[in-house]
Amino acid sequence: MYLIVIYDVEAKKCSKLHKYLKTQLNWVQNSVFEGQVTDAEYKIIKNELKKKINKEEDSVIFYNLGNEKWLDREVIGVEKNEITNMI
Amino acid sequence: MYLIVIYDVEAKKCSKLHKYLKTQLNWVQNSVFEGQVTDAEYKIIKNELKKKINKEEDSVIFYNLGNEKWLDREVIGVEKNEITNMI
Repeated sequence: MYLIVIYDVEAKKCSKLHKYLKTQLNWVQNSVFEGQVTDAEYKIIKNELKKKINKEEDSVIFYNLGNEKWLDREVIGVEKNEITNMI
Repeated sequence: MYLIVIYDVEAKKCSKLHKYLKTQLNWVQNSVFEGQVTDAEYKIIKNELKKKINKEEDSVIFYNLGNEKWLDREVIGVEKNEITNMI
């Protein structure tokens, strides 16, 4: 599946999440990661993030797009990080 | 089409973009909006944002998902703003 992960967490947790997510996905912008993952990898990512966030305050959204082919992606301004197919 | 808009812009421009985008889409999190739009509305939104950002520094990503049915959306932690179908 093609996954987009967007987080809005307490400032001090941002770098922790960033560090973890960049081992799993491609960084695209600020608090946004995306990439191709298997169902098993998606479960692992979700479980890891559940451990790292405060469920009363923080928020993480997962957009599961099934297939990257269904996605039309357009950027205006700076492309902060070119997507590379790391998996 | 179902559109997700994510922006990473200079702090002083955030509220300007937020104010504009909430007239067009549903606010979901921090710098993230989503909603159903027509092709014409998508063009208008893109043009408005092009005028508002600094193309050398700011970044806006548009994910066009075609149909919301293709999207599986999951949130962990706080649902910052429940999606309401305003269009």
